[in-house]
Amino acid sequence: MKDFSLEFYEQLVEGYDSVLDRDGISGERTAHRLAALCAIGLTDQQGSHRLAFSKEEKEAKLLVQYWMEKAGMIVRTDGAGNVIGRIEGTASEKTVLCGSHVDTVPNGGHFDGALGVIAAIEVAEAWQEAGYVPEKSYEAIVFSDEEGARFHGGMTGSKAFMGELEEEKETKRIDIYGKSFEEVMKENGLTMESVVSAGADLSRYDSYMEVHIEQGKELEKLNQSTGIVTGIAGPAWLKLRFKGEAGHAGNTPMNDRKDALAAAGAFVSSLTQLPAKASSTAVATVGELNVFPNGVNVIPGEVTCTVDVRDIQVKTREKLLKKITSLLEEIEKSWGVSIEKEVSMKIDPVPADKDLQKTAAEILGAEAVYLPSGAAHDAMIIGRYLPMAMLFTKSRDGISHNPKEWSALKDCMNTIHVLKKMIEKRCSVTEQR
Amino acid sequence: MKDFSLEFYEQLVEGYDSVLDRDGISGERTAHRLAALCAIGLTDQQGSHRLAFSKEEKEAKLLVQYWMEKAGMIVRTDGAGNVIGRIEGTASEKTVLCGSHVDTVPNGGHFDGALGVIAAIEVAEAWQEAGYVPEKSYEAIVFSDEEGARFHGGMTGSKAFMGELEEEKETKRIDIYGKSFEEVMKENGLTMESVVSAGADLSRYDSYMEVHIEQGKELEKLNQSTGIVTGIAGPAWLKLRFKGEAGHAGNTPMNDRKDALAAAGAFVSSLTQLPAKASSTAVATVGELNVFPNGVNVIPGEVTCTVDVRDIQVKTREKLLKKITSLLEEIEKSWGVSIEKEVSMKIDPVPADKDLQKTAAEILGAEAVYLPSGAAHDAMIIGRYLPMAMLFTKSRDGISHNPKEWSALKDCMNTIHVLKKMIEKRCSVTEQR
Repeated sequence: MKDFSLEFYEQLVEGYDSVLDRDGISGERTAHRLAALCAIGLTDQQGSHRLAFSKEEKEAKLLVQYWMEKAGMIVRTDGAGNVIGRIEGTASEKTVLCGSHVDTVPNGGHFDGALGVIAAIEVAEAWQEAGYVPEKSYEAIVFSDEEGARFHGGMTGSKAFMGELEEEKETKRIDIYGKSFEEVMKENGLTMESVVSAGADLSRYDSYMEVHIEQGKELEKLNQSTGIVTGIAGPAWLKLRFKGEAGHAGNTPMNDRKDALAAAGAFVSSLTQLPAKASSTAVATVGELNVFPNGVNVIPGEVTCTVDVRDIQVKTREKLLKKITSLLEEIEKSWGVSIEKEVSMKIDPVPADKDLQKTAAEILGAEAVYLPSGAAHDAMIIGRYLPMAMLFTKSRDGISHNPKEWSALKDCMNTIHVLKKMIEKRCSVTEQR
Repeated sequence: MKDFSLEFYEQLVEGYDSVLDRDGISGERTAHRLAALCAIGLTDQQGSHRLAFSKEEKEAKLLVQYWMEKAGMIVRTDGAGNVIGRIEGTASEKTVLCGSHVDTVPNGGHFDGALGVIAAIEVAEAWQEAGYVPEKSYEAIVFSDEEGARFHGGMTGSKAFMGELEEEKETKRIDIYGKSFEEVMKENGLTMESVVSAGADLSRYDSYMEVHIEQGKELEKLNQSTGIVTGIAGPAWLKLRFKGEAGHAGNTPMNDRKDALAAAGAFVSSLTQLPAKASSTAVATVGELNVFPNGVNVIPGEVTCTVDVRDIQVKTREKLLKKITSLLEEIEKSWGVSIEKEVSMKIDPVPADKDLQKTAAEILGAEAVYLPSGAAHDAMIIGRYLPMAMLFTKSRDGISHNPKEWSALKDCMNTIHVLKKMIEKRCSVTEQR
């Protein structure tokens, strides 16, 4: 096999217009760094396999430390394995934080997480080249275990940084190989104590920013490199059980049926109309549905399904949840079935900071495009405590968590330029509103 | 365990009003015979397990032969193992045929098939007691393998009797234990040749009648012992594949989705409205539905499902099938999915003979209730060649193919009285229109 990371680099820089290399930002360097991370944990299917706390994630973190030092940052790691590079500010106690993660899902892509980390360091690189030192301090951060593919959960590093982790809960976690969280921490030179006490002094932090690939198709449709994230849609998950009456498909007249699937079908199709009534960003999805007994000539007696409900505001998500409850009540009445409902998960959505969004919009000008993030990110954790902003970079075909994940270098660099300007504005004590 | 067949007998006769014992028909004898068949192949769950061509079915057939002889019939078996008891008529070349089956599904009930066989013999018993001999000949028949639970298919005996079996097809059949049809025939003292040449001289037969439990709830709802079957609904089976586009449940806006499940759900719920537009007896059921990839936070990219479509007339069933095709076309357009359709099975419905239905209605008088048979029966095979009638007896809760299958003795006897009168009228050369 030809070294794929080299091929990956060549694909990235092919046709790249170096007019985007300005203000100390380098497309070639960014491509090199994306390719260097691509080489760590590269799979036979040309995907990225860097599970949390694995030797591949560790190697990637070490490489990032090297880049941070090269960019003039003072590097430290915390008790959760998060890697932090710092530039001391000249005129403020506050620190602007920016980063993402280097772990991936099994056989994932080469941009998810990696781009955000490289972008955060690229800002420092550019400053170093220009001899610029910000008034507020600046930190680039690599959070451990964002994906949660190894230990079910995810965003472990950002939760630890926010002081959210509890020893009792964490010790119970077992990874996909059957190893305990504590054992894995030891392998990484960490302890349960170090992880749960990794919380930073949040009063010293000003804000958090993160660049991430969109993992959707909106920017592609609008032909925009960069999107301003309005908020991160916290998912609420419902488990539904439709109970009707099984019967012979031949011997039961249509008007004497309590068909659980017909009722569930009416629900699933009507559900698509509800999010628009709650907000323009709300979504609701029945992704999983199972029929019992699931026989060709048997009227379904029972159907179970899940509903994934998201919005970037708690209020509108709650509005949508209420509409869903009403719909279920209507369905119960009109289809003669009973429906059991259970809320199996509810994570609060986290809106992005309005001022930071405005700053991004001013930089983008007429091109400014707003969109919600349906997926969770470290920014969702940090955003509960600090003003948070996210910038999305256009994804090809919306494909993510897949070796085919791709973002054009031009789009990546456009986004990094916006990030740099946002951070510079936020780091300036005088400029800040 | 207490002998369940005795308990079964006691339950049957409990509260039975012997006012129904008239014209030589005996409720006690019928209960005894139902209990005697119940004892053959009785399962631990108190169900009936008499698979086709098993030693249990054979034993049941031998017992039935004994009853036939006791009722004054001349007994023969044919090349397919069908058992036939005959009473020679006084004034016609023609024979009226009446019967059912004694095989059951695994752990099935004690009325399905058994009641029809016992009813056919009970008519002969009554005649013997009265010294009555019909003008046309009369035959009671036990068809082999109606259920098809052993060799997938069913109605083997009635198909053989109609001369429908082809050696090439039959030799390919393998039972649930992996035995070939030929091997099983040998075990039963039959050969492939005897089976495929078992066809009767149909020109000598006048008509066919069958008593069967309803296996539905219509008679229970109407509080009627007996129903006149209007026809046997042949099933047409469709296989559908809805193809949409999988995507992240959080990152794909509602208006940019091609949700295969939302489309399938709209189809399944709208489908319930179509049968009434084709006829009052038509039914359509989606019994089996599978979602891919079936993940909580993934928009379903594909859904497969089946549609079971039945009616007692080909014309109205075809009308319904056309309406289904139109509905699928509408769904394709409005939901942006593509739908593949395949007809996987199509068996023609068989209407019951109008004259025989009229005779039954005259006997039942004001109580006459008509209903279609959604399930297949031997009468469906015979009805393609001879005038056919079926009488349904009320089932408790519509439960069938289950140890809990139950029909009250009162209802059984009411139906047998109707059957006897129908056969007598049909056997009379002078009385027949």
